Amino acid sequence: MTELLKDPEKATILAPLLANGWSETESGAAIAKHFLFANFVEAFAFMTRVALIVEKMDHHPDWSNVYRSVDVILSTHDAGGVTLKDVRLAEKMDEATAHV
Amino acid sequence: MTELLKDPEKATILAPLLANGWSETESGAAIAKHFLFANFVEAFAFMTRVALIVEKMDHHPDWSNVYRSVDVILSTHDAGGVTLKDVRLAEKMDEATAHV
Repeated sequence: MTELLKDPEKATILAPLLANGWSETESGAAIAKHFLFANFVEAFAFMTRVALIVEKMDHHPDWSNVYRSVDVILSTHDAGGVTLKDVRLAEKMDEATAHV
Repeated sequence: MTELLKDPEKATILAPLLANGWSETESGAAIAKHFLFANFVEAFAFMTRVALIVEKMDHHPDWSNVYRSVDVILSTHDAGGVTLKDVRLAEKMDEATAHV
């Protein structure tokens, strides 16, 4: 779960996320996504839902919010890059948007 | 309230905030503060409290969170810089830390 993903396995595992708005950061050490909501309330509702998830996972995002947008960067610092923990959290974030 | 603050009035009004951890950004068009909490739950509790305040004020921050830290940048975009709205919100954020 916390083992660094490496190609070609990494490319296969990330493919569904990359097709869903996620991208690899330049260094390849993180994945990122820009979420856009109808307004601040919707954006913060998403963040609140995700906050409960990340605290339970004990895996926290680097994220920022400006009005109705939320920018997320996921990386597993202990591993020095992207692991399955980031993939699972990215999937849960995408699921969380369905409820906002 | 939404009129751009200008020196010398600006310096006088900002002085209490600057003495309390806020700083002016390089351009002088915003004020910023780094908040550090005991853990993620405390950091997000602060953000939740502030979220209700900013939605009521209809004045939203540019803020980011990584685990137990929250970085805030306040500016009044319509005015192109720092106004009393930012000062009021900064004060309310500092008050909110007292409850976390």
